[in-house]
Amino acid sequence: MKKVSLNADIGESFGAWKMGADELIMPHIDCANIACGFHASDPLTMMDTVRLAKEYGVTIGAHPAYPDLVGFGRRHMVCKPEEVTAMVQYQVGALQGICAGEHAKVEYVKPHGALYNDMLNDGPLFDAVCQAIAALQGNDELPLMIMATPENHAWKERAAQFGVTLWFEGFADRAYDDNGKLRSRKHDDAVHSETEAMLEQAQAFTEGKPITSVNGTPLSIQIDSLCVHGDNPGAIDTVKQLREIVKGSDE
Amino acid sequence: MKKVSLNADIGESFGAWKMGADELIMPHIDCANIACGFHASDPLTMMDTVRLAKEYGVTIGAHPAYPDLVGFGRRHMVCKPEEVTAMVQYQVGALQGICAGEHAKVEYVKPHGALYNDMLNDGPLFDAVCQAIAALQGNDELPLMIMATPENHAWKERAAQFGVTLWFEGFADRAYDDNGKLRSRKHDDAVHSETEAMLEQAQAFTEGKPITSVNGTPLSIQIDSLCVHGDNPGAIDTVKQLREIVKGSDE
Amino acid sequence: MKKVSLNADIGESFGAWKMGADELIMPHIDCANIACGFHASDPLTMMDTVRLAKEYGVTIGAHPAYPDLVGFGRRHMVCKPEEVTAMVQYQVGALQGICAGEHAKVEYVKPHGALYNDMLNDGPLFDAVCQAIAALQGNDELPLMIMATPENHAWKERAAQFGVTLWFEGFADRAYDDNGKLRSRKHDDAVHSETEAMLEQAQAFTEGKPITSVNGTPLSIQIDSLCVHGDNPGAIDTVKQLREIVKGSDE
Amino acid sequence: MKKVSLNADIGESFGAWKMGADELIMPHIDCANIACGFHASDPLTMMDTVRLAKEYGVTIGAHPAYPDLVGFGRRHMVCKPEEVTAMVQYQVGALQGICAGEHAKVEYVKPHGALYNDMLNDGPLFDAVCQAIAALQGNDELPLMIMATPENHAWKERAAQFGVTLWFEGFADRAYDDNGKLRSRKHDDAVHSETEAMLEQAQAFTEGKPITSVNGTPLSIQIDSLCVHGDNPGAIDTVKQLREIVKGSDE
Repeated sequence: MKKVSLNADIGESFGAWKMGADELIMPHIDCANIACGFHASDPLTMMDTVRLAKEYGVTIGAHPAYPDLVGFGRRHMVCKPEEVTAMVQYQVGALQGICAGEHAKVEYVKPHGALYNDMLNDGPLFDAVCQAIAALQGNDELPLMIMATPENHAWKERAAQFGVTLWFEGFADRAYDDNGKLRSRKHDDAVHSETEAMLEQAQAFTEGKPITSVNGTPLSIQIDSLCVHGDNPGAIDTVKQLREIVKGSDE
Repeated sequence: MKKVSLNADIGESFGAWKMGADELIMPHIDCANIACGFHASDPLTMMDTVRLAKEYGVTIGAHPAYPDLVGFGRRHMVCKPEEVTAMVQYQVGALQGICAGEHAKVEYVKPHGALYNDMLNDGPLFDAVCQAIAALQGNDELPLMIMATPENHAWKERAAQFGVTLWFEGFADRAYDDNGKLRSRKHDDAVHSETEAMLEQAQAFTEGKPITSVNGTPLSIQIDSLCVHGDNPGAIDTVKQLREIVKGSDE
Repeated sequence: MKKVSLNADIGESFGAWKMGADELIMPHIDCANIACGFHASDPLTMMDTVRLAKEYGVTIGAHPAYPDLVGFGRRHMVCKPEEVTAMVQYQVGALQGICAGEHAKVEYVKPHGALYNDMLNDGPLFDAVCQAIAALQGNDELPLMIMATPENHAWKERAAQFGVTLWFEGFADRAYDDNGKLRSRKHDDAVHSETEAMLEQAQAFTEGKPITSVNGTPLSIQIDSLCVHGDNPGAIDTVKQLREIVKGSDE
Repeated sequence: MKKVSLNADIGESFGAWKMGADELIMPHIDCANIACGFHASDPLTMMDTVRLAKEYGVTIGAHPAYPDLVGFGRRHMVCKPEEVTAMVQYQVGALQGICAGEHAKVEYVKPHGALYNDMLNDGPLFDAVCQAIAALQGNDELPLMIMATPENHAWKERAAQFGVTLWFEGFADRAYDDNGKLRSRKHDDAVHSETEAMLEQAQAFTEGKPITSVNGTPLSIQIDSLCVHGDNPGAIDTVKQLREIVKGSDE
């Protein structure tokens, strides 16, 4: 059985504003997607976050975004591909600069918010992100984390043209449409309200078995990582339950 | 005779706003202090600037600053030393990220504007900058460029405690007070209005001979680099003249 | 014959960065669309700009935009209607605050860049802008300037529901498609390269006569104002020529 | 007995980041110092905040600051007086623009953080703020709120030269030095840790009686308003207690 990791968005405070329960969730995750100052965070917050990740041996990922603090990087913006390449290199480089003093390393990249979504709907933007990673990775591998769908293979091929490896992530708490994409939040059944459904989906993902779409269709979606949330102390309990399931996948 | 380089602030455009005659000055300088997005520039401008520097074989330096676009990094701000360490690592790292795709490298750091001045008036801030560089340089050397004064030696010792090498820069067009510091711009004679005085001062710097203070006192100030300006096409002629003088120093 | 005014985007410098030849164009225009700090300008630049407009008796308009300095407000961003209402009120209010000390007044609003375009392609955004103006205008009239097309009447009705008056602007230097919209800049013939064509179009607009589309179709487009550009000293000559044509319209 | 009001800093959220318990404290205060987007808040947050203040009949004040989101406006910055005048007009105007749609009005100005402190240590900055208010107030009065000290009279005279009225505020929870200024937070006894001391000081302020310095010296400091804090739900209890004391002052 393949190892599945738990990843979470981390380090989303900004100056005097605190967000997330980073100290509580860090002990339970494998991979931290660390904000790089464009949608959240600032140099000092990034330094504190890197230290916290190191303390718990959590793998550090860069979480670059559109330059939109007020909108938390969630607003779609029309940026040219070369702007996206440059902004990803800038943000990942900045996090590497912060890591330098902590004997830490940026080991993967997961774009945030609108950039994450746009990249999967716009080929040239996806290529722009891959180009940034190709520039940054040198001889090491710097995987790009994107959403797992039944079309993982096509994305892998596209990224391979840039020499970029992909990591695919799934969501335990989100319902999937028949096409294997996340059910839009416009619908009431976009999020699994019952813990059991969420845990079942996590179990299926972890065992590499099909999950079930909102319409009951079985969907074969392979994942490398499960995305979890630590927005509030209550969410941490869920993470612990998912940790129990995902732990099993490594044995 | 020791080699003296010519350095200039470069890449100070921001989005749609252009500043400086980078294309005109780049062929004539040795070292480009490239803005990193906090007082000027943006990721795409940084990428264009790095490419231009590479084209002319110019050594790339990071030019980090306080976070103050409106004030162009010239306004004194009270930042804590740990904020300064983090903001320098962030900005230098960001420029390294941009360099990654261009087979280019950040080879030194010269703080900008108010940060440059504050660092020389505030020991803990100087240490904070050195700590950032110590973190960033790893096994290579990443020199810090600061203003040359008769007290170069004391600064060298302070930086050496962090394992940081210093490069000292002088100004050909600025008058010096008897204490070896730049004459304040409050005074009418702060800038050499006559080309001859400027060229003479450059010549003295280059030959390692004393320069003359505003009061006629000889000042022994050793420099590694001469700071020049390319703000406008007219300034380029001056740079060419200085280039002729400094060229001699390498033979 | 109806009076047609000349309007131009003004006050687009930002901190140390200068843009536009404001001092040169101001004597020749009637209406200044003054940037409000979201895509360009800053409080002190706004104050200088208001003073310059007052000096030449030019009518002051607010030029609000998306919050995007790096992109100069030209990048489409998905903002919610209530965000747009709030950001327009904020920016117009800010300019009113700057005007307060100069015995000057904001007399109309012309959204900038991507917000200007989006507003005309998205009903709820247009309504959001109208709602902001309705809130701001009190008992006075605060007209909204938008692009003139053959559908002016439909826009007037929509704006009237908010009690908002419209001013329609035309472009002398831009070609129009058969549907009465600006020819996309993707095409080589989007801009009139010959001065004569531009002056002819201005003449037609001013006399209330049909202009001619790129395909030779006559288009009846009524305008209140002609948009001119003062980006560089050369453009000022064009403005002076247009000034001659538009002057006639007032007699 | 003179009426004393309770004022609090309000509307300090920024985009996705929440700060303060505005809904909880608003029912208990008289005056809301509303952030204007330079150190905290954004147009939509400002609109929500104005609505909340209106709902509870709370007097609206503008809370302008240095342009420093990352530092929450707490970092001293060297700005020129004319920059300060312009930034205060900009921010107060922006809040007026937001108020326009809510039948609300900005009724006073209290600078925030470092600007508040700098203004009281630097005459030209104080004058710069007064000049902004003079420009903004027209024929109405737009009082400026500053810290009460034994030197209220001197400040009143200085402000009167600009036609500006002052409101003086005191702090119930902060200790005062013998010179009538707030005890620096560097000292352990800067904040009254015991509720009783705080309530006693509030009582003295409210009754116009001398308060007692850290060294036991009686200090005669006249106030118009008492500054309270609503940073967290716990702080609300304190506000309620102060409300009881201050209520008495109006009878």
